[in-house]
Amino acid sequence: MPIIHVYMWKGISQESVNKVISGITNVFVEMNIPAQAVHIIVHEDPKAHWGIDGKPATESRPNVEPT
Amino acid sequence: MPIIHVYMWKGISQESVNKVISGITNVFVEMNIPAQAVHIIVHEDPKAHWGIDGKPATESRPNVEPT
Amino acid sequence: MPIIHVYMWKGISQESVNKVISGITNVFVEMNIPAQAVHIIVHEDPKAHWGIDGKPATESRPNVEPT
Amino acid sequence: MPIIHVYMWKGISQESVNKVISGITNVFVEMNIPAQAVHIIVHEDPKAHWGIDGKPATESRPNVEPT
Amino acid sequence: MPIIHVYMWKGISQESVNKVISGITNVFVEMNIPAQAVHIIVHEDPKAHWGIDGKPATESRPNVEPT
Amino acid sequence: MPIIHVYMWKGISQESVNKVISGITNVFVEMNIPAQAVHIIVHEDPKAHWGIDGKPATESRPNVEPT
Repeated sequence: MPIIHVYMWKGISQESVNKVISGITNVFVEMNIPAQAVHIIVHEDPKAHWGIDGKPATESRPNVEPT
Repeated sequence: MPIIHVYMWKGISQESVNKVISGITNVFVEMNIPAQAVHIIVHEDPKAHWGIDGKPATESRPNVEPT
Repeated sequence: MPIIHVYMWKGISQESVNKVISGITNVFVEMNIPAQAVHIIVHEDPKAHWGIDGKPATESRPNVEPT
Repeated sequence: MPIIHVYMWKGISQESVNKVISGITNVFVEMNIPAQAVHIIVHEDPKAHWGIDGKPATESRPNVEPT
Repeated sequence: MPIIHVYMWKGISQESVNKVISGITNVFVEMNIPAQAVHIIVHEDPKAHWGIDGKPATESRPNVEPT
Repeated sequence: MPIIHVYMWKGISQESVNKVISGITNVFVEMNIPAQAVHIIVHEDPKAHWGIDGKPATESRPNVEPT
C-alpha cells in the first residue's frame, strides 16, 4: 500500500521511468509511508491508441512528443 | 473526466481503434460532456493472456478473431 | 471481450449510467462484436479525489457538475 | 497524458489526497509536462479488501493505519 | 509482484473476500512466488453499474445474486 | 462477473499464464460462480517499469526472475 498505475505514451526513456518511480515514491515517503511499501507500474500505450477530443492523440495532439 | 480504459485482444486495426475512440467519445458528448474532456486508452492484450472459462481464449474461443 | 472500465465523478444518475452502458455497447456491436460479449464497469470516484492541474477537481473545476 | 490511478486504504484525509495530487503532478511538471495534462484518480479501498500475505491487511498488517 | 485487481458486484461478504485473497495468493505460491509478494485488491461495484448485454446487470442478470 | 486484472513482470511463460488463469478461475468456481463468468486478463509489464522501494525492480530486486 499504496499501489500506483501510471499510464503514459509509448516511447518514454528509462531515465524518465526512473524519475517517475523515485518522484512518486517520495511523495508517499514524505507522508511517512515506507518506500518499500510503494508499488508503481509505469504502463506505456501507443499515442495512436490514446483518445483525446474524439481522435487518437496522434491526430489531436500531433506536436506533443512522448516524454 | 471521464477516463475510459478499453481492453481488447491484440491485433485490432488502427481503423477500429479510431472507431472505438470516436464512438465512445460521442456517447459522452451526447450527455453534454465536451469531447476534449473525454480521455480513452485502448489497451491490447494477447488473446492467449485472456482467460475465459478457465482457459486462455485461444483455447476457449478458438474461432473468434480479434476485431 | 472487450472489457471497459469507465471512471466518472461520483453523483452520476442511473439514467446516465444506462446511457453509458448502452451507448458504449453499441459502438462494439457496430463492429460486429455481440452485445453479450461487452463488459462495462462504470466506476464513481468523488470529484475531490480526482486531480487535474495539481489540485482536486473541486478546486480546479469548481463549476462543472457531475453528469 | 499521463493518467495516474492511485489505490490506497480507505480513511485517507482530504489533506493527504491533496498532497498526493500536488506531489505527483509536480513529478511530471519537472519533466516539462504541463500540470493541466496530468490526471490523477485517488481510489480508496477498505483495508479489509486488500490482500497481502494471503490475508486481508486488517489481519496481516493490523498495526498500520491508513494515512 | 504480482498485483491483482479483482472486480465483483457489491455485496460480497468478508468471508468471501478472505477466500478470494487466500485462494488467489495460493495460485502464485504454488508457482514459487512468496505470499508476501502477492498484492490483491478486491473492488466492489454496484450491480447496477455493471453493464452486460447493453444493460446494467440488474436488468440483464436479474436472478444472479452477488456472492 | 468477476473481472480480474493480473499484473506480472514481462517474461512469464504461456504455461504459467495457463496456471494463473485456471487457478484463479477455480477460486471462484469453488464459490459457485460458473467458470464461463470469470474473465481474467494477465498483463505483462517490464521489470524495469515496475517500481519498488523508489527504484525499478531491476535495481531493487535484481536477483528475482520473472516466473
